[in-house]
Order: sequence, then C-alpha cells, then structure tokens
Amino acid sequence: MPSSSVSASIAWAEAVGPEHVITDPAALGAAETGTFVTRHAIPAIVRPANRAEVQECLRIANRLGIPVYPVSGGKNWGYGSRVPASDGCVLLDLSRMNRILDFSEELAYVTVEPGVTQAELYDFLQQRGSRLWMDSTGASPGASLIGNTVERGFGHTPYGDHFAHACGLEVVLPDGEVVETGFSRFASAKAAPLYRWGVGPYLDGLFSQSNFGIVTRMSLWLMPAPEYFQAYYFRTPSPDGLAAMIDALRPLRMDGTIRSASHIANDYKVLSALEQYPWRETGGQTPLRGPLMDKFRRDLKIGAWNGSGALYGTRAQVKEARRLLRQALKGKASRLEFLDDRKLQLASRFAGLYEHLTGWNLTRVLAVLKPVYGLMKGIPTDHPLFSTYWRKRSAPPEAMDPDRDGCGLIWCSPMAPNDGAHAQQITGLATELVLGHGFEPAISLTCITERTLACIICLTYDRDVPGEDGRAMACYHDLLDRLAASGYYSYRLSVGAMSTMNQPGTYTDLLQGIKRTLDPNAILAPGRYIPE
Amino acid sequence: MPSSSVSASIAWAEAVGPEHVITDPAALGAAETGTFVTRHAIPAIVRPANRAEVQECLRIANRLGIPVYPVSGGKNWGYGSRVPASDGCVLLDLSRMNRILDFSEELAYVTVEPGVTQAELYDFLQQRGSRLWMDSTGASPGASLIGNTVERGFGHTPYGDHFAHACGLEVVLPDGEVVETGFSRFASAKAAPLYRWGVGPYLDGLFSQSNFGIVTRMSLWLMPAPEYFQAYYFRTPSPDGLAAMIDALRPLRMDGTIRSASHIANDYKVLSALEQYPWRETGGQTPLRGPLMDKFRRDLKIGAWNGSGALYGTRAQVKEARRLLRQALKGKASRLEFLDDRKLQLASRFAGLYEHLTGWNLTRVLAVLKPVYGLMKGIPTDHPLFSTYWRKRSAPPEAMDPDRDGCGLIWCSPMAPNDGAHAQQITGLATELVLGHGFEPAISLTCITERTLACIICLTYDRDVPGEDGRAMACYHDLLDRLAASGYYSYRLSVGAMSTMNQPGTYTDLLQGIKRTLDPNAILAPGRYIPE
Repeated sequence: MPSSSVSASIAWAEAVGPEHVITDPAALGAAETGTFVTRHAIPAIVRPANRAEVQECLRIANRLGIPVYPVSGGKNWGYGSRVPASDGCVLLDLSRMNRILDFSEELAYVTVEPGVTQAELYDFLQQRGSRLWMDSTGASPGASLIGNTVERGFGHTPYGDHFAHACGLEVVLPDGEVVETGFSRFASAKAAPLYRWGVGPYLDGLFSQSNFGIVTRMSLWLMPAPEYFQAYYFRTPSPDGLAAMIDALRPLRMDGTIRSASHIANDYKVLSALEQYPWRETGGQTPLRGPLMDKFRRDLKIGAWNGSGALYGTRAQVKEARRLLRQALKGKASRLEFLDDRKLQLASRFAGLYEHLTGWNLTRVLAVLKPVYGLMKGIPTDHPLFSTYWRKRSAPPEAMDPDRDGCGLIWCSPMAPNDGAHAQQITGLATELVLGHGFEPAISLTCITERTLACIICLTYDRDVPGEDGRAMACYHDLLDRLAASGYYSYRLSVGAMSTMNQPGTYTDLLQGIKRTLDPNAILAPGRYIPE
Repeated sequence: MPSSSVSASIAWAEAVGPEHVITDPAALGAAETGTFVTRHAIPAIVRPANRAEVQECLRIANRLGIPVYPVSGGKNWGYGSRVPASDGCVLLDLSRMNRILDFSEELAYVTVEPGVTQAELYDFLQQRGSRLWMDSTGASPGASLIGNTVERGFGHTPYGDHFAHACGLEVVLPDGEVVETGFSRFASAKAAPLYRWGVGPYLDGLFSQSNFGIVTRMSLWLMPAPEYFQAYYFRTPSPDGLAAMIDALRPLRMDGTIRSASHIANDYKVLSALEQYPWRETGGQTPLRGPLMDKFRRDLKIGAWNGSGALYGTRAQVKEARRLLRQALKGKASRLEFLDDRKLQLASRFAGLYEHLTGWNLTRVLAVLKPVYGLMKGIPTDHPLFSTYWRKRSAPPEAMDPDRDGCGLIWCSPMAPNDGAHAQQITGLATELVLGHGFEPAISLTCITERTLACIICLTYDRDVPGEDGRAMACYHDLLDRLAASGYYSYRLSVGAMSTMNQPGTYTDLLQGIKRTLDPNAILAPGRYIPE
C-alpha cells in the first residue's frame, strides 16, 4: 500500500471510526460490480454515521485530493448499482444514516436520512397504524428513498413522481459546508417540510441528478389511504393497438380521473416477469421471437400490450372513474378487468379450483399480479428482481442479488409525449433495434405525468456469457443514439452513459461553471451527470 | 446629460432602435413609481423586441457596467410594480416580446414570450374555440404570464401553483449567452414542453425569484375544461371559526376531492372588494373597527371568514365532491352554497326582483362574486384592483392604475401549514398588528397546495396622505419580523424588503457564489432576492 493511501486510510478512520473504513478486496470488488460492464476501481468504502461525519469526509477528500462518490442504498440496478462514474473514487456509503427524523400523520410527510429504505418506511407506517401510504418504486424494498428521489425515480401511486413530492433538503456541499433548502434555511420555519419553493431561487433541483452536493436529509410527502382502492388491468392483442389505448387514457389522466401512472408493458416484459428464458423450447437460440413468442403469448394469455393502473377515492369516486375508464377503453382494449382487495383474496383462495376447471395457471399469474397490485398501493416488493434472472440458466436464489449473480441489466429510459403516435414510434424503434442486437425488447410505458410517458427499455442478459457485456452495452448506446436522433431523450442515465448527452455549448458551460464554484477540487462524484 | 450617459444611450439605441429607448422624465418617473415608497432612479427604459436584442442589451450592460432590471409586464403591484431593487438600473421592458410561439390542444400547453399577458392568452384560447382553460391570478388581465410564474404567483384553478405547471425555459444569462432548460436543451426533444425535469440537474428553479437570468420563453400547461364546473361558497360568523373550517377542508384537498385552492377571506378583505372606506360613517377616523365594522358585516351578510372554491369534473364527480364537502363543513360553516353557470345566469337576470323582494343588494354582491367565480375558471379580471382604492377619497377611475393613482398597496405573504391552529395563529397575529399600526387587516388564506396556506395580508392605504407611506412600510416590516419570529416566512418579497431574509451564512454564500459565477459584473437586477 503506498504511503499516500495509508495516510488517507488513517484520515478516513479518524473521521468515521476504523471499523467503517472498508478496504477488503472482496468487498471492494463487490462494490465495483454492477449489472453491466464497469471498469472503475474503488480504493475504499467509507461509511459515515451522520451528517458531521459526511462533512468531515468531504474536508478530507479536499485536503487529500481524493474524490468521493456517495451512494445511499446503492440499489441503482440497471443504472450502475454502486459503481462510481469515474475511476479511483472512495465510495461514501450512507446506509448507516437510516433515521426517520420527523413524521406527521395530519400533514402527511416524513423526514428521512439517505439510508432509510423503502421497506423501512413501509414498516414504520405499518407499525404506527398510519393511514398514510408511501410510494414505492418497483426496484427493491432495499432501495433508498432519498437515493431514488434525487435520481428522479418514479412509482405507481398518485405520488409516483418522487421529486415532485419532496422538499426541505439538507445538503452537504463539496467543501463540507451545509445548506438547507426551501424554508428549511430558516431555523424555525413552520412550512419547511411542506412547501417546496421557499423564498428566493428554488435550489432543490440542483441536487438531483448531479454532483453538486450530498443530500443528507429530505422530507417526503405521503398520501392518505383512500376509502377505496381498485386496480384495473387491460390489454390488446395487437402490437399496433398501443396508440389507441394511450390516446384513450390521456384525457382521463389530464382531467384527474386517473391520478396515478398507468403502466403498459409489452409481451416480453410480462413474460420475463412470469418465466425465465425458454432455453429448452428455443434450443438455446436467442433472441426469443416469432411463432414461439406468439405461442407463449397465447398460452399465458398475454397481450401484445398489457396495461395496469389504479383508482383511488371514495366508492362513488372510484365507481365514476370506472365508468369513464370503461367508456374510454371500449373498443381499444380487448379486456378490461377490475380488482380490489376482496376479489384478490377470493382469487387467491380459489386459484387451485380455478386451475382445475379452466386449465389456466392462476397461481402463477397471481404471483406476478399481487406485487404489481401492491405497488399501486405503495407496498415495496422485490418481485421485479426476478426478471433480472431472465437469461440465466438456473433459477434465481432465494435472496436475489443481480450484481452478485452476474445478471446483466441495463435500463434505457427515454421520455415521450403522452400520445399514441409517439408511443408507437418509440416502442417500434426500440423493439426492432433490440431484437437486431440479439436481445429481447422488454418494454414498458409509464404515464408518469399528465403529458409524458416514461418508456423503460430493459436489456436483460447473462453476464456469464462471454461477449454479452460488450454486445449489451453496444445495444444500449445504439438505443440512446437512435432514440435521441428521433427526439426521445432519457430521463435518467446509467453510469455507463453519463457523457452521452453532454454536448459542448452554453448549457454545459453553465453546469461546469456551477460545478467549479461549488467543487473547485472536483472531489465529489466526478463525471456524474456533469461533464468533467 | 453626461457623456457616459450619451454613449450608453447610443449603445442601447443601436441594440433596440432609438424609438425603444425611453428617457422622457415623465415616463421614467412613472416607472419609478410603485404602490409604496421607493427611491430607486431609472436612467432609461429599453424595450427589446426579441431574444437577440435582450442578449445585446446584456452585452452592453456588461461593457458599460450599467445594471439592467428586467420586467415582463411590470404589473407586480403590491410587491414593487416596475421599480428596480437597486438604484440606477436601466429598465429592460420585455412587453414587446409578446408572441405565442407554440400551442397544443391535445397535450394542453402553450409556449409564450414574457410580454404575453393573461388577457392575451385568454383571448387566444377563446378565439381558437379551445377546450383548454388557463389559470389566472387575481392581479390584473395585463399581468405577464412569465413574470407571474417566475415570481411563483398563484391562481385558483387546479393549475394554481404556476411554477409547478411550467417548463422548458429559454433564459438569457447575464453575460448574454442563452440556455434552454429541461429537455429543451436538445434541439429536437419531443418532451421539451411537457416534462419538467429533463436529464441532469433541474435548473428552472434557479431562474425563479432570482437575478440569475432573464426568462425569454416558457411553456405553460393548460387544463382541459371539465364537463361540469361548480363553485362553492361558505362562511362562518365567528373569527375563531377559521381553524375548524381549515381542518375540515384539509382531508378533501389531500385526497384530491378538492383539486384547486380554496380561498378564505376575512371580513375586511370582502368589504374592501365591495366598498371604499366608509369615510362618512367613521367621521374620517381610521382604522375601521369595532361596532361599525360589525354593522357592515351584518348589513352586507359578510362572515368573519368567507370561503370560496370550485369543483371540476363530470357531473357525477362533482356531485360526490359536493356530498363530501357538505359532510366536511357540516357544523363548521354557517352557510355552504353552490353556484354554477345556470344559477349565476338566473341570479343576474332576477337580481332586481330579488332586491325588490328582500331589500338585499344582490347586484352589488354579484359584481364581486362574478369575477371571483370567473377566476376559478381561469378568466382574468381587473376587479381586484378596485380594492386598491379602498382608502382613496374618490371613486376609482374607469381605467384603474394603482401606481399612477397614488394607491398604497403592500402585500405581505407568509406561508403556513394547512392546519387550523396555524391559520388561527397567523391571522390573529397579523390582525392585531395591522390594526395597531392604524390599517385595516384585509387577509386571505389560500390553500395553495395540499399542505400549505398562503396567507396574504393586504396593506391598503392612500399614498396622498402625508406620512402614510412611512407608516405602511413600518407596518410591513413589523409584520415580516413578527411573522418570521413565529416561524411564518413569506413566499415572495416586495422590492422594499428583498434584504430582510438574507441572513449571513452558508446559504447566502451559496447564492452569492452562483451569482458571481453567472454575473461577475453584477449587472443583472442587483439586489433582487440575491444579497449583494
């Protein structure tokens, strides 16, 4: 170990305690491993316990000129996991900072540190018998709430646009100083966890998808549980049927009848949630396509496009929404079904009988349906992790860990207008391109706001197959390029593509100017979203 | 005229044409005049026609070291009108930039320049027979949409939080360079006017309530007209009845039953919308209070607190919301009445008969009620200007202009949690303090978001009365101080109080650091929100 590393290790150990400085090669190797090829080495993992220790770590980083890369939960699967955006960054693991600092049932918010996970907040609310629902991403119960929110992730309740439902940040700046945003900057401000904008410029946005500061506290808004909840499911057998469904749903989303994100998944996406790759049936050939794919679709009663969403309100509100939804999707969707707690319970109880009578494997369907249903109520689930094992040759283990298990996963996430023609164009383009690269195009469209669709294209492969890492990354970059050329830009970037959208020009100059002002030594997460 | 001014005038004239450089003392004097005391001189008004001219103006400002102060419509009444936040700024009047650049009926947005007023957008939508509604502030039909939005103003429809319904800014930076925010930074991005966050840090917030750039283009979202619209009105005779009403409404706002801002005004606020100050009845004494105020309240059927709001949806959705509202306000409000287009039409037609039968002046009530009703449908109105003449000795002229007519008006706008106890505390504190200073406390609470109330305290006085300017400003500063001491901070500041919330510390350092980076010569709106 060179002496500079030794003195660095001593400094980190003084800041956080020696037991929280990890230099064990196996642990570092694990942290350097994501779900796609990465080459950035991590010299150490440092685990501060509180804001003061984070501040001290940044002072050390400046003093020694060693960059640090913060991760909250590190579950950024498909976008880079814990792997830093540049080489040689000390990983600042914030998972020990896992306190829930404030909570109000009446004003419906919670204030958390970065280590608080989706599962922890869910448990917290359950234990209190709270009437509030959180919003959960489909990523993992272990995902950090703050981590996901600053990455501008989304979920499936009316509070699905996470960054739009958060405020009052505490941020450690690269020089180790601390600011609090919005009204939090005033010590006693009563509206601090409640009102986003504060007074003067609104700065929260600076600290999302950037490397301008480390968010060490955030208030998140929670939604009151509705009197009644009902999920809806619909599908179309035709690949071209997507446009009509999107256009039918838009007015209901716009006028507030539908308050949450409808989610429309293609056949590949649904299949990969139900099954692993059919190696036997394909005789080992990839990608899966043609008559064999058609057969799976028929057998499993999967549409070309499969929608889900939920209605929240009083019984009368949901009833009216149901009427409007039926009316809107008439002739556009081949099936529209509604599901509530009671019906789900019944279905679970009689699944065996149903299968016996119809030959249709309801148990398997329910195993997929229940987590999706729960997500729409903000209940975290690790079920979506199952699909990351799609191309693996063996079944997923009990405790799934895509990073560890060589699951290849890259998410490409372009945004499109909430418009049928755009939906058809973006998915058509992605489908053809991904198949052309030899992968299955598992695609979903989430109507994340009234006016936009997040198109999530999931590249799933087996990292243990030689050459696949490179082929998948080539496919991803081809996707990014081709989608951008058509006007569809990603809402979020993987650590393997941070630089793709950095065009020289005034905008980049502005970002770099702010970066130099806040971080003259470039020690905070260099390369993350902001061009170096 | 000193030679430096001469060379400056030549430079401005070259940039925008000599006819658009105004140095006429009367015009400058008018621009230096707001609705409260200001002392900042304006050496010239420069009126660029387009973005390129704005850029050129900023280059000139940097070259000559002359600060410029942009105003869009300049109707920032009660907060400073057109008057710059510091002395010697050339006024950059953007009102000639009044093009509507883009519009989509389906995706429900419009892209405008800063000179486009509320009235112009309203007319544009009417002329097209659009099914979309805009949101309007109660300020003035002549108010700039962009100006109000970057000041984070609000209106009364579900799109009332203006800054939350805007994106895709074009901004001229202080050095004359241009950036476009969100996905607009990519030339062809389809989601540019539709998705706020873009990719990388969200920068729009930097350009609201600041002096970091001049917004020369913005996309604003519009709401689809509902199938059915119904306004509701309620009141309580008891000053202490406010808390119960606020707490009754909160759950409905939180769960989406009420989608827009309910507005609750006190007796003074309503009275000043109906009448001018009762000089005769008071024998010239101020402030109005005690038995005489009680008599007005009784005679005009005004509650201590008077609420209004609206329901938007299908007939069945509104019916259910009405049921829930009735249930919530039962025993909390003394009257709850509903009004729709049909009922309003009938009332207007039979107002005379009604007055004849009941002796109650319905015509006068309708004159106030109709504009408020219209505002909830996003229809701009200049009716609220009437109340700025409250303390004047003569009736308002046909074309009202508070700046010109010596109307004293200062708005103080603290934010509070959407909670009855806070509502009672903040309004109690303001009422006592304002009366103590000799003014009438005209106060409204607007439930601007699910979790917050904007408390707007309106100080209205007659600038022609010697000493009143000073007394009103003292009252305003006393209010700001006392409210802040209780934890209630303003969401917006008047040009006379920009510095009150600037506490030395890291937050101020951060703002100043960004300012120095973007505007090293400090030529853009010095003193506006960002400490010098």
